[in-house]
Amino acid sequence: MAVEQSPAESPMEAFYRDISAKSFDALWRRHGPPTPTADEVKALYQPHLWRWQDVEPFLYRAMELVKPSHEDQRRVLTLDNPSVNPMHAATHTISGAVQVVLPGETAPSHRHTMAAIRFVIKGKGAITFIDAEGCTMTPGDLILTPGWTWHGHVNQGDAPMIWMDSLDVPLVSMLRHGLYEDYPDQLFPATKPIDDSLHRYGRGHLKPVWDKTEGPISPLLSFPWEQTERALHELAQSDQSPFDDVAFEYTHPTTGGHVLPTIGCWIQMLRPGVKTLAHRHSNVSLYHMFRGSGSTIVDGVQIDWEEGDFLAVPPYAWHEHHNRSTSDEAVMFSTNDIPVMESLNLLREQPYLQHGGHQPITGQYSASTGA
Amino acid sequence: MAVEQSPAESPMEAFYRDISAKSFDALWRRHGPPTPTADEVKALYQPHLWRWQDVEPFLYRAMELVKPSHEDQRRVLTLDNPSVNPMHAATHTISGAVQVVLPGETAPSHRHTMAAIRFVIKGKGAITFIDAEGCTMTPGDLILTPGWTWHGHVNQGDAPMIWMDSLDVPLVSMLRHGLYEDYPDQLFPATKPIDDSLHRYGRGHLKPVWDKTEGPISPLLSFPWEQTERALHELAQSDQSPFDDVAFEYTHPTTGGHVLPTIGCWIQMLRPGVKTLAHRHSNVSLYHMFRGSGSTIVDGVQIDWEEGDFLAVPPYAWHEHHNRSTSDEAVMFSTNDIPVMESLNLLREQPYLQHGGHQPITGQYSASTGA
Amino acid sequence: MAVEQSPAESPMEAFYRDISAKSFDALWRRHGPPTPTADEVKALYQPHLWRWQDVEPFLYRAMELVKPSHEDQRRVLTLDNPSVNPMHAATHTISGAVQVVLPGETAPSHRHTMAAIRFVIKGKGAITFIDAEGCTMTPGDLILTPGWTWHGHVNQGDAPMIWMDSLDVPLVSMLRHGLYEDYPDQLFPATKPIDDSLHRYGRGHLKPVWDKTEGPISPLLSFPWEQTERALHELAQSDQSPFDDVAFEYTHPTTGGHVLPTIGCWIQMLRPGVKTLAHRHSNVSLYHMFRGSGSTIVDGVQIDWEEGDFLAVPPYAWHEHHNRSTSDEAVMFSTNDIPVMESLNLLREQPYLQHGGHQPITGQYSASTGA
Amino acid sequence: MAVEQSPAESPMEAFYRDISAKSFDALWRRHGPPTPTADEVKALYQPHLWRWQDVEPFLYRAMELVKPSHEDQRRVLTLDNPSVNPMHAATHTISGAVQVVLPGETAPSHRHTMAAIRFVIKGKGAITFIDAEGCTMTPGDLILTPGWTWHGHVNQGDAPMIWMDSLDVPLVSMLRHGLYEDYPDQLFPATKPIDDSLHRYGRGHLKPVWDKTEGPISPLLSFPWEQTERALHELAQSDQSPFDDVAFEYTHPTTGGHVLPTIGCWIQMLRPGVKTLAHRHSNVSLYHMFRGSGSTIVDGVQIDWEEGDFLAVPPYAWHEHHNRSTSDEAVMFSTNDIPVMESLNLLREQPYLQHGGHQPITGQYSASTGA
Repeated sequence: MAVEQSPAESPMEAFYRDISAKSFDALWRRHGPPTPTADEVKALYQPHLWRWQDVEPFLYRAMELVKPSHEDQRRVLTLDNPSVNPMHAATHTISGAVQVVLPGETAPSHRHTMAAIRFVIKGKGAITFIDAEGCTMTPGDLILTPGWTWHGHVNQGDAPMIWMDSLDVPLVSMLRHGLYEDYPDQLFPATKPIDDSLHRYGRGHLKPVWDKTEGPISPLLSFPWEQTERALHELAQSDQSPFDDVAFEYTHPTTGGHVLPTIGCWIQMLRPGVKTLAHRHSNVSLYHMFRGSGSTIVDGVQIDWEEGDFLAVPPYAWHEHHNRSTSDEAVMFSTNDIPVMESLNLLREQPYLQHGGHQPITGQYSASTGA
Repeated sequence: MAVEQSPAESPMEAFYRDISAKSFDALWRRHGPPTPTADEVKALYQPHLWRWQDVEPFLYRAMELVKPSHEDQRRVLTLDNPSVNPMHAATHTISGAVQVVLPGETAPSHRHTMAAIRFVIKGKGAITFIDAEGCTMTPGDLILTPGWTWHGHVNQGDAPMIWMDSLDVPLVSMLRHGLYEDYPDQLFPATKPIDDSLHRYGRGHLKPVWDKTEGPISPLLSFPWEQTERALHELAQSDQSPFDDVAFEYTHPTTGGHVLPTIGCWIQMLRPGVKTLAHRHSNVSLYHMFRGSGSTIVDGVQIDWEEGDFLAVPPYAWHEHHNRSTSDEAVMFSTNDIPVMESLNLLREQPYLQHGGHQPITGQYSASTGA
Repeated sequence: MAVEQSPAESPMEAFYRDISAKSFDALWRRHGPPTPTADEVKALYQPHLWRWQDVEPFLYRAMELVKPSHEDQRRVLTLDNPSVNPMHAATHTISGAVQVVLPGETAPSHRHTMAAIRFVIKGKGAITFIDAEGCTMTPGDLILTPGWTWHGHVNQGDAPMIWMDSLDVPLVSMLRHGLYEDYPDQLFPATKPIDDSLHRYGRGHLKPVWDKTEGPISPLLSFPWEQTERALHELAQSDQSPFDDVAFEYTHPTTGGHVLPTIGCWIQMLRPGVKTLAHRHSNVSLYHMFRGSGSTIVDGVQIDWEEGDFLAVPPYAWHEHHNRSTSDEAVMFSTNDIPVMESLNLLREQPYLQHGGHQPITGQYSASTGA
Repeated sequence: MAVEQSPAESPMEAFYRDISAKSFDALWRRHGPPTPTADEVKALYQPHLWRWQDVEPFLYRAMELVKPSHEDQRRVLTLDNPSVNPMHAATHTISGAVQVVLPGETAPSHRHTMAAIRFVIKGKGAITFIDAEGCTMTPGDLILTPGWTWHGHVNQGDAPMIWMDSLDVPLVSMLRHGLYEDYPDQLFPATKPIDDSLHRYGRGHLKPVWDKTEGPISPLLSFPWEQTERALHELAQSDQSPFDDVAFEYTHPTTGGHVLPTIGCWIQMLRPGVKTLAHRHSNVSLYHMFRGSGSTIVDGVQIDWEEGDFLAVPPYAWHEHHNRSTSDEAVMFSTNDIPVMESLNLLREQPYLQHGGHQPITGQYSASTGA
């Protein structure tokens, strides 16, 4: 089996040559990236901030340049964190984007194995169609388009409709499970009443008595801002997290769990002047700063943000939040991969124990350099 | 071992005598109530209606005669279905009652292994204290006092506060697990903010991110009518059950399941003029007719009810509902033992298939005779 | 509404009369059995011991007197604890019995909503048929006949086959859910291979890859003594409970939970000379002393037992076990209502903390008096 | 914000340049690998066969060349499927390897977030230590070393001990969660009895009554071949899958689910002469051919294998198995990523419906070319 050894070749070299020819490798010579210990672990890529002052003008230029269609897909600007190589995504598991649909426009129905959520930023009068249901869209609403559901959008209002998209594209791509189909017509027919799932599950903890929904996909597809906002103000009176201040996860009405098996959705409110304590965890977060202004310190670097900005925080990065206003609340919507890390038993969290729980600030985030 | 047989005694009689002396019985001579087949099964006791026109004057007399205290317990009138022998209860698993607390009064804290719910009928300004939390009470609100929680009531308003109680007393008594304790002082101290659980879980499907609640007891203790009413009207636009029309179960926010392991709570709305189809099931229901007027046909007997009435429907009784008004909705709150029957794998349901799904009416319910 | 008061009648008496006429009662005058506090709670009925030296001769007499048929049901002697009034059962939730089938006999198929287990005491060559499956029976085997499954027995061996039955009859009767049907023919046809479920699930923690079994009923119907005995001896080397020594619960292979939703099954081995510590709990236990001899002290009374005896321990009775032999193991099989108490959130356990964990012995159990 | 357009640059080009400078991309110009529709989907990489006739001599050469230590890690040959770029692994989620430990040798304890299983191929007298427990190793045994458990191996026998390793390394690496630590000493101390978990959970469906194990990691760490082999022969008498013949998944004793959250383990037996039907699915499988010889047809290519070979089957490849012997059984052990695909709602399966369920054979697998 073994090939003759050349004079200059050591027995070990010959061995490596031989096993390689048969598609084996020797674990002891494998030179991958060094695997850190739990104490040494650091964020493996950089956080990134995308500013609304950049996004908004780009959206206006895109309105002129592109029209949604099956050919051109959506009028979507993706958030590409330059440090998440080789992916074009905000984080290594969760992607983000901003989409705009003009009055009168239709983004035709398609479906894909990748799941998505939409968080509405601006506009009024648009509807997202998910399989047979239409969901109205108002700023602050969260809308789910689970994997392999037909979905399209129509703007019947009189102003551009802008929302944040967040998907599990990087995760599903790594798992080699990306399937995609266009619906043969413009829109999959909406045979259910508008906001049907909201009317079945959305108002209080009440379930239609005949409902037998099971499985990991929330049957409730829209979570209106009106209720979310009230909930934030009421929880603010009752309790807060030292790391996240007033913070909710959106939940699946018939299991109480995550809304999707691959994407967790959070809404949180930093009360005026609040500085949270620092911690880090194995999951990522992708924030949209829905209201207010503040700073997030990530691995010692202060990242100042304004209303509308997007911020990606990588796994194992120490981070803490600060609402810079002493009078106004700041509201952050975010998506994360907690459901994935939890399912796979990989979720870890660690509080920052030095300096009273706050990181020393070692630099200011600069848009041009990343960090 | 066997005793000598007397001359007149057959070998079988001697056998029965001998085994009985040693605390055995012979299964083949056991004469219990005949066990029916699935086809033969009938309601084993009668439905019963308690009329608000009777209840209300009794409550006013009770206000003069009794004062809540640890000695006299609560000012509570229990619903005693005469046909549920030997129990004093509305059904064999779920009991019901009406309680009134006068302005300025306190019903001191106690706790018991039996779980209870309160559904508010009239009044304003009272608070139910459940362990460390106070829950405000408004007509139509559902309040939970789970088993072994300290609970007391205070009326700080200016009118009598009246509510329906429903408990698992008959079930827990059968299971020989009734424990009871008075709190040494008037009220267990309320150290949490008023309506704390409502502010944590009550507004939409949102869960505080730090929450780790598990187990079969809902951490949400109050379900306000404001949301319930809106939900009923929205579901009315989307979907209905042929047997129950517009009907919700109240749910546990972190599991999506029943609010308590022994009592299920439903709210349902019969749209104007609606006649539901008949069915029957192994679980009981105890209704409070919160709004409107209608008729329920139970095993062919028409039971007319008005706002405020209470109706117990026994297991395996065919039943269907009719909103007699063509202009007004009727709203029925009810408790049931579905969680128990489901846990023990004893839940069965059967639709009525004859006569287009409606029972022939064979009689009118008469208060004096029961059925 | 109120009837006129008679001269001798107080206002309260008149009130009681009036509400009673309308099927109400006043909670404050309710005189039930006094509800104890958690500290005061005591066993509400007595333990009971049935001796094999009584059982065995009765079985032989019953063999002559009765033949299994649809008319005479089974040749079954039930264990009637005289203190569990008004039930004829070993405990208030779980009943027990001994059944014997002679060589060549058939106990015809029937089904009932009550679930049962069989624990084989003596004999060889019998088969229990459960729906379409036949399960072989060998001493020490546990066989399940879940609620509403057709089941019959055939003895194809050459000696009487004797086993313990344990059912949820008292529980299901209290819940008014007892349904019963005879199979029109002798035996429901066995279309599956003998011991089919044992061959699918029974050998190690392995599940057929196509299996989708769900729900609270174990798909594995027989648990052979050969494996149980080996498990007991291996666990004896690894770990023990202070209250139960070497003790296993039989489990549901696709959920890891209880084998039935209403009956838990345990097997335990007291190593030679072992004295366990005392504790008490809200669940009952009904023991069959399969091997060895020992004593169980229940609420201070010492109950000596021999191989073959049956012992019912009521809820909230302090109890501890003693293997009187210093050379031989004692093996106790038992059924319990833990699954019920757990589902309904009523399971409580309390260790005995005085006297080093052992009760002072205050008396000896006497068969004639009960305790 | 927008930079001036150069003369030769179109507005779209300028737009792309501008957004790119701010770390955005336009979804509509994204050129990734084309995403297939559900009908078009094909295996994204090639199957691979590693032959025992190659492995065994390499192992003997490795015995001379390497000694296990913290520096050199393990004497492990990894299975590197050349088509799974850019990973060095058998599949994109599950890796495989062969490890050998010589008599008297110790592979020192380390731990990592990656979970592993061992399937014993040859030898006797070795022990794998997992945290405080030692598990004996016999050919055909499955041993689990869950993520972040300390594990080391000692060979106390007199022949080399050879086993298959399979890990979730590619998955955990993609998820950026690889942590690694060497134990400071040779072996983490084994304070539990040998085969402790086997003695607690391993013999039949029995659970120590005091056990409260929860969570997704099986507390049973070893699954002995003695029981597995008996189970295979018994299931062969009862039932089979058309796609996998006699096939079991190893299960978690207290949940009935997968043994690990990231790796599923199967054992299957092809009865003599059996040809299974073809199907495909979104999960991968990595087989070790433990006994016998046969052929697996993957996407039309016939792959002949002998005892000891390893075969990786990629997602969405059509495949069917054939036991070429008409007298001997073939036994295949395999690992898969079904638990992952199931948790993330990405598990899909499809039967092959043409040609009576069997693929036309279009080629023979050649070791040198891959496929």
